[in-house]
Amino acid sequence: MIIITKKNVTKEQIEAFRASMHARGLDTHLSVGEQHTIIGLVGDTTRLDIEAIASLEFVERVQRIQEPYKKANRKFHEEDTVIDVRGVPIGGGHFQVIAGPCSVESEEQITDVAFKVKAAGATLLRGGAFKPRTSPYAFQGLKGEGLKMLIAAGKAAGMPIVTELMDATDLDLFQDVDVIQIGARNMQNFSLLRHMGELKKPILLKRGLSNTLEELLMSAEYIMAGGNEQVILCERGIRTFETATRNTFDVSAIPVLKAHSHLPVCADPSHATGHASLVPSMAMAAVAAGADLVMVEVHNDPAHALCDGPQSLTPEAFAQLMPTLKALRAAVTAEVKA
Amino acid sequence: MIIITKKNVTKEQIEAFRASMHARGLDTHLSVGEQHTIIGLVGDTTRLDIEAIASLEFVERVQRIQEPYKKANRKFHEEDTVIDVRGVPIGGGHFQVIAGPCSVESEEQITDVAFKVKAAGATLLRGGAFKPRTSPYAFQGLKGEGLKMLIAAGKAAGMPIVTELMDATDLDLFQDVDVIQIGARNMQNFSLLRHMGELKKPILLKRGLSNTLEELLMSAEYIMAGGNEQVILCERGIRTFETATRNTFDVSAIPVLKAHSHLPVCADPSHATGHASLVPSMAMAAVAAGADLVMVEVHNDPAHALCDGPQSLTPEAFAQLMPTLKALRAAVTAEVKA
Amino acid sequence: MIIITKKNVTKEQIEAFRASMHARGLDTHLSVGEQHTIIGLVGDTTRLDIEAIASLEFVERVQRIQEPYKKANRKFHEEDTVIDVRGVPIGGGHFQVIAGPCSVESEEQITDVAFKVKAAGATLLRGGAFKPRTSPYAFQGLKGEGLKMLIAAGKAAGMPIVTELMDATDLDLFQDVDVIQIGARNMQNFSLLRHMGELKKPILLKRGLSNTLEELLMSAEYIMAGGNEQVILCERGIRTFETATRNTFDVSAIPVLKAHSHLPVCADPSHATGHASLVPSMAMAAVAAGADLVMVEVHNDPAHALCDGPQSLTPEAFAQLMPTLKALRAAVTAEVKA
Amino acid sequence: MIIITKKNVTKEQIEAFRASMHARGLDTHLSVGEQHTIIGLVGDTTRLDIEAIASLEFVERVQRIQEPYKKANRKFHEEDTVIDVRGVPIGGGHFQVIAGPCSVESEEQITDVAFKVKAAGATLLRGGAFKPRTSPYAFQGLKGEGLKMLIAAGKAAGMPIVTELMDATDLDLFQDVDVIQIGARNMQNFSLLRHMGELKKPILLKRGLSNTLEELLMSAEYIMAGGNEQVILCERGIRTFETATRNTFDVSAIPVLKAHSHLPVCADPSHATGHASLVPSMAMAAVAAGADLVMVEVHNDPAHALCDGPQSLTPEAFAQLMPTLKALRAAVTAEVKA
Repeated sequence: MIIITKKNVTKEQIEAFRASMHARGLDTHLSVGEQHTIIGLVGDTTRLDIEAIASLEFVERVQRIQEPYKKANRKFHEEDTVIDVRGVPIGGGHFQVIAGPCSVESEEQITDVAFKVKAAGATLLRGGAFKPRTSPYAFQGLKGEGLKMLIAAGKAAGMPIVTELMDATDLDLFQDVDVIQIGARNMQNFSLLRHMGELKKPILLKRGLSNTLEELLMSAEYIMAGGNEQVILCERGIRTFETATRNTFDVSAIPVLKAHSHLPVCADPSHATGHASLVPSMAMAAVAAGADLVMVEVHNDPAHALCDGPQSLTPEAFAQLMPTLKALRAAVTAEVKA
Repeated sequence: MIIITKKNVTKEQIEAFRASMHARGLDTHLSVGEQHTIIGLVGDTTRLDIEAIASLEFVERVQRIQEPYKKANRKFHEEDTVIDVRGVPIGGGHFQVIAGPCSVESEEQITDVAFKVKAAGATLLRGGAFKPRTSPYAFQGLKGEGLKMLIAAGKAAGMPIVTELMDATDLDLFQDVDVIQIGARNMQNFSLLRHMGELKKPILLKRGLSNTLEELLMSAEYIMAGGNEQVILCERGIRTFETATRNTFDVSAIPVLKAHSHLPVCADPSHATGHASLVPSMAMAAVAAGADLVMVEVHNDPAHALCDGPQSLTPEAFAQLMPTLKALRAAVTAEVKA
Repeated sequence: MIIITKKNVTKEQIEAFRASMHARGLDTHLSVGEQHTIIGLVGDTTRLDIEAIASLEFVERVQRIQEPYKKANRKFHEEDTVIDVRGVPIGGGHFQVIAGPCSVESEEQITDVAFKVKAAGATLLRGGAFKPRTSPYAFQGLKGEGLKMLIAAGKAAGMPIVTELMDATDLDLFQDVDVIQIGARNMQNFSLLRHMGELKKPILLKRGLSNTLEELLMSAEYIMAGGNEQVILCERGIRTFETATRNTFDVSAIPVLKAHSHLPVCADPSHATGHASLVPSMAMAAVAAGADLVMVEVHNDPAHALCDGPQSLTPEAFAQLMPTLKALRAAVTAEVKA
Repeated sequence: MIIITKKNVTKEQIEAFRASMHARGLDTHLSVGEQHTIIGLVGDTTRLDIEAIASLEFVERVQRIQEPYKKANRKFHEEDTVIDVRGVPIGGGHFQVIAGPCSVESEEQITDVAFKVKAAGATLLRGGAFKPRTSPYAFQGLKGEGLKMLIAAGKAAGMPIVTELMDATDLDLFQDVDVIQIGARNMQNFSLLRHMGELKKPILLKRGLSNTLEELLMSAEYIMAGGNEQVILCERGIRTFETATRNTFDVSAIPVLKAHSHLPVCADPSHATGHASLVPSMAMAAVAAGADLVMVEVHNDPAHALCDGPQSLTPEAFAQLMPTLKALRAAVTAEVKA
């Protein structure tokens, strides 16, 4: 951490500050300039409160050098984390595809989609039972009943399942869920993150609509600091001024996250774009950019879907996309090895 | 609601759609053009799922005409809502100032600040006990103990109190809290909003960092649809590309919200800017723009604050600001009356 | 175009408006609702001023249905435009790579880079002579001298060249330039666009940092309306709140532009990310998303580049990237054919 | 400037770098940590190219400490700049109001508006003759003819005039213009800025839609570095995700610019919001925030304006607003003096 002082700082202020830092086991280095004195702090500054320092009277600005996250940081954990989801390995060079409808609507629907996406090559099944909706008057999901249908469909098709949790008080219902998804709007619901830290289940953590990648990693750190290191990071589009797409798919998040963290990185082109016609090319871009897994919304009848119909692929379109994703993945992996 | 069809729509598709809308009690009007047919829906479309319609095969685009919120909408409730907080009226031409520290740190600290801001003219006391922090390693608030200190300070100074709730399971501790704040990061924590709808307490609902004003009103609608109509809307800065300020204070949110809704509107210049030096001018701008109340962070010793020190005013600076806010309010009110 | 009227509109207002539209050769359709009357305008509304209509007293809102661009619109020109640049075809299923340094620095430098990128498979040479720089004190390019060096290098290596024009008064110097680039900061410099419309040269038009795709197409329309239909659209990153990358690469712009327009689409991963380490994966993502061409900054000695060093690849890294781009392109093209 | 090195930096690299900096007259200070070495540069770093340093092999990150602008910087020019526009002082505690239509449409129109806004208290007259429009098919202004009408109206009413220049080749026509406006879309048209630096006229420089305040100051620096120090900075709204307003009025830009620069600061609530109903409250907010001048679009017949009708006030609404602006200004000035 670097502290840039105001012009009128006194020697006494600097020495008092240095003493307090030394007491915390940190080293300090001084660099005295004409306009500013610069104090470098050396040691583990993760637990220092940057804002508390920034508000000291003699401080003009504070600059972090170390990232504020540790457990999620590749610097302290060079090897890729590989998460085993009932035999399906995620991360570490493995490539997986999650597919399924936005919402579970009936046992027939979810089972039908499950068998179809499996046949096309998907390895995990998604489906929403608890749905976060902007309007209190919109369909909110089948909740507990939907969860049972999803679990049954996953068993029938032999696929691990991924579904969203919105409220920790519903956790009892999630015992047979393989991967718990924390949605974009809850990425900084710190109470919920803390609950996730106490579990032994993989967590798929979606980036918030206006959250930086550093904030996403800090939210992963919340879960990991609690003891659960099985976190999958997911880029799903950010909010910008552009209105041609529902969100703006930040494809560069994939290599940035993989450079800074050892956690697996997922991409969700369905929510990122909001239009089925854009999903295939964006899934392809995600694979080319190095995503460890891709999550695609697939619905047997998008025109009658109870939510997110406009961004769902049909099972046929999904089946057509899969060979291209595999071909792209092969090209990317060849490049990495070369 | 207006539905714009694709070029190749058939008469049968249009007639089937019209029949399904008539069955829901809605009227339809057709306008047949060269490239598109336009279907206007007339009646209460609040409960129609715009996405479900958008995904119908023959639909190119759907455009809402009515706002999707009803209880928060000034069109259906012309008079300003006035919320009584233990004798302090909020909204409807009354002007109030909430002041206090970001975090409650000790009984002395919060009591000292309470008496000082009251003397300067503040009418409600704020103070954080449960603190949402980006880092799991940062100070998270004194929690239950802090809440007790805040309640005691409010009683001692004779001021109603405002404080943030992060988790509905903590609600028992909030019985003596006068106004519950829902923070920006929880604005779309729909589970929490639903809990707020079951209470009989005023809720101060902060706008999320990247949420539109319509989404803020939809979150208010969640609370109101549950039965609690005492909602105060709060602008606290949005996230943009600009880095000179912590957030960008969207001062135009104030007149836009007041035009579309009857609910009181608060502004929080401290979080909006992140710098104490900008707080006075932004509080002044908020008053000039017509805010019903302003919330200002005041700390007895900003340089040693456990959080948000850089954006806190000293009690002295706050006392200096208050007469200007009152003079501006008088000028604004005179204009409204003229 | 759809006009939504205010509640209190009178019959006379509506009839007067309809008459004025009929006089312009447009048809109107009425849809009378409880709260609003909706007027649909049928015919070519491209030349109607949406703002003038929006400010009519009885109008609440106006909604375009047709896109406001015509010459750039795929609806009126279904086939891909193919631009021939001295024998190098751009668009229409052809794939090209532009490479070269941010700035031309010397004849040796640009010639050296030209031969190296050509050997690796690049088909067009780029190099800046007139450089738009945020600071008046930064290196502004070698200008006329640089242009001569670039032209010479292009001839020597047998590659068409691409370079930026900032001021129409410099046009004389650009006679031997094959493709003129209009930079992001000049995307809405309408005077300059008009000058480009009078040329017979291909124009590479870069998207502005905060311009929508519709605005990019409108700027292309400026050039095309002037008579020059050889426009290449270029996505180069937009400005968002994220600071991990210099800009946010909006990869979805590629399929969106290709769906709405017949013009070729280029991607510039170097400016989009600002970091050499991210350029390969983002070039790969662009190819996977369907870009017709990719533009990559390559510098023989990035550590001593006079501008944009941090985002430049070495010729070696570029040579390593090219086979992967070709393999990805093959996978994408196979998909399109299947 | 602070340079943070990579872990594997060698002593030789550091010493070579220090030598090159000493050769430029800069001092260096070293701070050697476990993970990084930090090099502080002391002296005038304005002309150092931060990107060139950032791309050195051993450099991880570079951080500016000094602002990159000098002539616009309050640190080197503490007193407010006061610009005299034909007897009307701008900046330095004076408060002025610019008013007039978006476009000059006829001699009667502009003269009528001029007399009316002058009677209401405006001190400068605005009116567009050359209009930057997104569509090539929209009304582009009356150009030279419009300019003559504006000049005549300004003379008749005894008001200095402000109008936009889009192309330096039109400069001959601007000899009798008192203040030249550079529009938001040309804020980084560096060729045009350089031309402005050669003039002896005040320049009203508008902030670009997605430009930071530092970039705005750098564009002012371009003009000032050329020899013309009469620059007025203008906030006119930035582009964000919010769609309720045409742009987001960044009111905090006013105190931030005034803190960092000695130049006068103007606010344009008309373009910032795009809705006449929001203009009065945003003009009021701008005055409360400390703006030196406010620019308001006023049109005698907004419903028939050839551009920007929806955001124009009538002369009557403007006349009603002026006393409130003056009362607010008095309240703000009293605060400053107290």
